[in-house]
Amino acid sequence: MIPKDHPRYRSLMVRERLSQCAKEGIVALEGLAAHGRGEAFDYLLGERTTPSALQAARTAAALLLTADRAVISVNGNTAALATAEVGALARASGAAVEVNLFHRTEERIRRITALLEEHGVDVLTGTPERLIPLSHDRAWCLPEGIGSADVVLVPLEDGDRCAALRAMGKQVITIDLNPLSRTARTATLTIVDELTRALPNITAACSELDSGTAARLAGSLDNAYLLRAAIEEIQERLDHALD
Amino acid sequence: MIPKDHPRYRSLMVRERLSQCAKEGIVALEGLAAHGRGEAFDYLLGERTTPSALQAARTAAALLLTADRAVISVNGNTAALATAEVGALARASGAAVEVNLFHRTEERIRRITALLEEHGVDVLTGTPERLIPLSHDRAWCLPEGIGSADVVLVPLEDGDRCAALRAMGKQVITIDLNPLSRTARTATLTIVDELTRALPNITAACSELDSGTAARLAGSLDNAYLLRAAIEEIQERLDHALD
Repeated sequence: MIPKDHPRYRSLMVRERLSQCAKEGIVALEGLAAHGRGEAFDYLLGERTTPSALQAARTAAALLLTADRAVISVNGNTAALATAEVGALARASGAAVEVNLFHRTEERIRRITALLEEHGVDVLTGTPERLIPLSHDRAWCLPEGIGSADVVLVPLEDGDRCAALRAMGKQVITIDLNPLSRTARTATLTIVDELTRALPNITAACSELDSGTAARLAGSLDNAYLLRAAIEEIQERLDHALD
Repeated sequence: MIPKDHPRYRSLMVRERLSQCAKEGIVALEGLAAHGRGEAFDYLLGERTTPSALQAARTAAALLLTADRAVISVNGNTAALATAEVGALARASGAAVEVNLFHRTEERIRRITALLEEHGVDVLTGTPERLIPLSHDRAWCLPEGIGSADVVLVPLEDGDRCAALRAMGKQVITIDLNPLSRTARTATLTIVDELTRALPNITAACSELDSGTAARLAGSLDNAYLLRAAIEEIQERLDHALD
């Protein structure tokens, strides 16, 4: 039992939730290490949504709202940590939800789909095809999902697949706490923020933006600026780290 | 199978090794996330031993050589990643080796001891007592090991226990990639470097230092300076991150 007054209570509870989901086969063991990497960068960002991350979340809402077909790609960590938040964003944005895994097994797809459906999320079904230009299991996606989407929101994506989706001409929105990662630099738009903070910010912006503002925001997207701002936030904190 | 020419080959192999050890009950699931946090900081440090980390490793050798009784405390991640390196350091420094776990179970103690012994490492045995001023299972250690040591090398330590060992009057040497962590700031000496790079550097210094140099190095220890140098290395890299 983690005491509620522990200074790291939230962080410890999240780790416990992920460990439990790993035991249940929802989260891959590799997903636990990936979460740790994110935690380190979140620590450096002050575990809060920075102004530039909020701006990125609003821009993400604009891309989703102005898309012809938007899809939210959900992996094990996302399902474990943000089931409700994914459902709320899908409803607010009109985006479809596809379960798509880096460490793909039919068993994990089934378990993650069940978890999302228990929380009232509509999940795309169909016959996956090898549509993404990558070797191995990472090539699979649904033709009626990511395969035909013009905008894909992929929280916690890997760099290779982000590049492959971009090469297919898709706009890729990612949520990645590491502003230096290949994913962060390859995506169309990177929200440098923690998943359960970023998703509700996108959802809120979906309700607020009128179509004119959405089109303007989508048109003025500058990912290099957003990444630089995130790095500057980290530098600012490091400057005062030992005060 | 991870291809040998993958740019992240070493890092991916290490993750695979840890996942395998987690399945075998040597590494705790929480240890996988902890490894991820270390990876993120190592990435920011350029995945190399910085000059200040080398200086810290030499100072660690000096503390071990001038100790009355030095003990190396080994946990699951250390055993999984650096069995041979721990053995070499124990031989070079004369330090004893104790298995001491944050997520303590007798089963894990037994497995980790067996893994070390398979690699020729002498591991302390005895009846653990609640000697460390902490609640729960983290209080246990061996009276003839950490309990009576004046210098303890604890790679990958947690902040609470580092503080408790300091409160017992012990000199604590830690290996921690996060120069901002509570452990890093509470320890007597922090080596901000990756475990399998740091341990051989300490071992090499044990062979090189004469007793006069060791006494001088131990006497001039300035951990705040070493931590500041590590933070400056990270800042330097961030300055050029998006060049």
